[in-house]
Amino acid sequence: MKIDGRHYRTIAPTPEDDAVLVIDQTKLPFSFEFMRLTRIEDAAVAISAMHVRGAPLIGATAAYGVALRMRDDASDASLASAVERLGATRPTAVNLRWALTRMSEKLHNVAPADRAAVAWNEASAICDEDVEQCRLIGVHGRELITRRWRETGRTVNVLTHCNAGWLATVDWGTALSPIYQAHDAGVPVHVFVDETRPRNQGAALSAYELGAHGVPHTVIVDNAGGHLMQHGLVDMCIVGTDRTTATGDVANKIGTYLKALAAKDNGVPFYVALPSSTIDWSIEDGVRGIEIEERSAREVTHLMGRREDGSIATIEVVAPGSPAANPAFDVTPSRLVTALITERGICDATREGLLGLFPERRAAA
Amino acid sequence: MKIDGRHYRTIAPTPEDDAVLVIDQTKLPFSFEFMRLTRIEDAAVAISAMHVRGAPLIGATAAYGVALRMRDDASDASLASAVERLGATRPTAVNLRWALTRMSEKLHNVAPADRAAVAWNEASAICDEDVEQCRLIGVHGRELITRRWRETGRTVNVLTHCNAGWLATVDWGTALSPIYQAHDAGVPVHVFVDETRPRNQGAALSAYELGAHGVPHTVIVDNAGGHLMQHGLVDMCIVGTDRTTATGDVANKIGTYLKALAAKDNGVPFYVALPSSTIDWSIEDGVRGIEIEERSAREVTHLMGRREDGSIATIEVVAPGSPAANPAFDVTPSRLVTALITERGICDATREGLLGLFPERRAAA
Repeated sequence: MKIDGRHYRTIAPTPEDDAVLVIDQTKLPFSFEFMRLTRIEDAAVAISAMHVRGAPLIGATAAYGVALRMRDDASDASLASAVERLGATRPTAVNLRWALTRMSEKLHNVAPADRAAVAWNEASAICDEDVEQCRLIGVHGRELITRRWRETGRTVNVLTHCNAGWLATVDWGTALSPIYQAHDAGVPVHVFVDETRPRNQGAALSAYELGAHGVPHTVIVDNAGGHLMQHGLVDMCIVGTDRTTATGDVANKIGTYLKALAAKDNGVPFYVALPSSTIDWSIEDGVRGIEIEERSAREVTHLMGRREDGSIATIEVVAPGSPAANPAFDVTPSRLVTALITERGICDATREGLLGLFPERRAAA
Repeated sequence: MKIDGRHYRTIAPTPEDDAVLVIDQTKLPFSFEFMRLTRIEDAAVAISAMHVRGAPLIGATAAYGVALRMRDDASDASLASAVERLGATRPTAVNLRWALTRMSEKLHNVAPADRAAVAWNEASAICDEDVEQCRLIGVHGRELITRRWRETGRTVNVLTHCNAGWLATVDWGTALSPIYQAHDAGVPVHVFVDETRPRNQGAALSAYELGAHGVPHTVIVDNAGGHLMQHGLVDMCIVGTDRTTATGDVANKIGTYLKALAAKDNGVPFYVALPSSTIDWSIEDGVRGIEIEERSAREVTHLMGRREDGSIATIEVVAPGSPAANPAFDVTPSRLVTALITERGICDATREGLLGLFPERRAAA
């Protein structure tokens, strides 16, 4: 995607191939800076300290972490320890483990002398594949926006929650990919961005990337979406997902379920964009089957932001001594989901819908 | 209600009757301080700068503002200018106008020499009546909590939104009154407190007053309530309202509607507590009929809180340059409201339900 008219990926090797550059997302939205990863430890810290975040981007960073390690020491022992080190950075990230397994399997069959080059190419391939998947989600999803525009003849208002944009992936994003592609194709689109407490990824990251690319948008508190839908101000919702069940239930950032309820109550289509890698074919009932991570109360009680003088400060916003709970995700039952937007196309949020797009899963199911 | 075991009202004359003390709510939750009102201008500033807030408390403060003015100058011209000055402090507050009209009508028939004393008594009566109304709401509402406790034999979990507690009234509060009364009667009750962005009255005020009185509670982000209800962690919701239609629709702080949807979806009772003064008998359809105040975008983009060193700071939390919208209230349709809790008892959120408790309105309707 573009920042001030120039194209960037969230992760890319330097032109000299001597290091990997990632956008330091802990500095956003107040400062746009790159971090240079030259050793495996740089990649591990980038992931664990959340300089990079978002499942696909974490996977890509880990892959490059392995590749950087292979330049220093391409032995079997080094490969094993690299996988172990990187795997420990974010214990629950599915994509991280997937990327490390892929790197590991690829490199095991390669002579140590060739591993550095092969690893670099494989990490690059993982990035390119992610970009292509996200692009395809956008190609399919933009038709929904374009169709609505043709129906109404006016700007299409899309509501989104959290950050399922290019900052969470290598490029394009998932939920925001259809929006970028519609915008780039000249379809007038405006985005209502939920701030997405407690970590404010909507206000900080989605608003930043939409603004940088030039997409009209308005930040709202998480409380406001229902009211907007009641008054006909939202044409559709598009959100991402961290895990999708075989029956079309979707786990996503806490609060997604509330927006899906409001969409249903007001006849607003509710779409979920996902690469098929997030489908967990082993789970039937998302509400009962998906364990929800409980994160630190401090994310609720404290907030970080920029002071008038430009310095970054952390403030406490909850009555001192009051405990806080912080479930990080919720599950939206498939009955509230109008359709799923995948890299293979759009389908109903049902087992049959998913199997129609992924028939190779039929035997397993 | 109590703070550290000692009983307070949010507004009360000094023992010497030489001034009025109000809790300075702009200092909460980090500092508990009183403001001394000795002239009408003190009362006007207390209201306009939101040192006091909440419809009933604003009305009570305005009444004392008139009384303070009568001590300085009890002429007709002085009375008229006092009403004008105080009426301009918060243009949309219904209770403010009601209290000023009551004071004005009472004092017009009184000789100027007696006005100071009569005004002081009338302001005191307004406060006492508010306390009694809120107490009665609690008496009726606590039965719902007690009944649930008897059914389950365990702590009753109540979810509330915003601050409809004693800080918004003279004592007891509206939505929180049933909770205080159940707690004081020994019924085990725990409150999930929505932080209530953008102004965080839940995290700052409801959490503060529940904690000060000793009621177990947990602060959550506004996004979390649906997830908690999905998992059976909420026994009932109780919220307040700024305006109730003749048909039982309720306007309340933005985000209330989303919680009502989640309650309905999960079979959780959704109660709205209100003094009958908030009923607008002239409106049928709340969603179409109630105009929603759009407040400053800065309430969304900036937050105030306490730094580690104890100082109060304001930080920016939205991507710079991104616009924000800030509708302050939403309307929950009566179909999502299980019952209304009023000072006269509990009724269905319907025209017939309300007329059953307020039969004197039948002729008008």
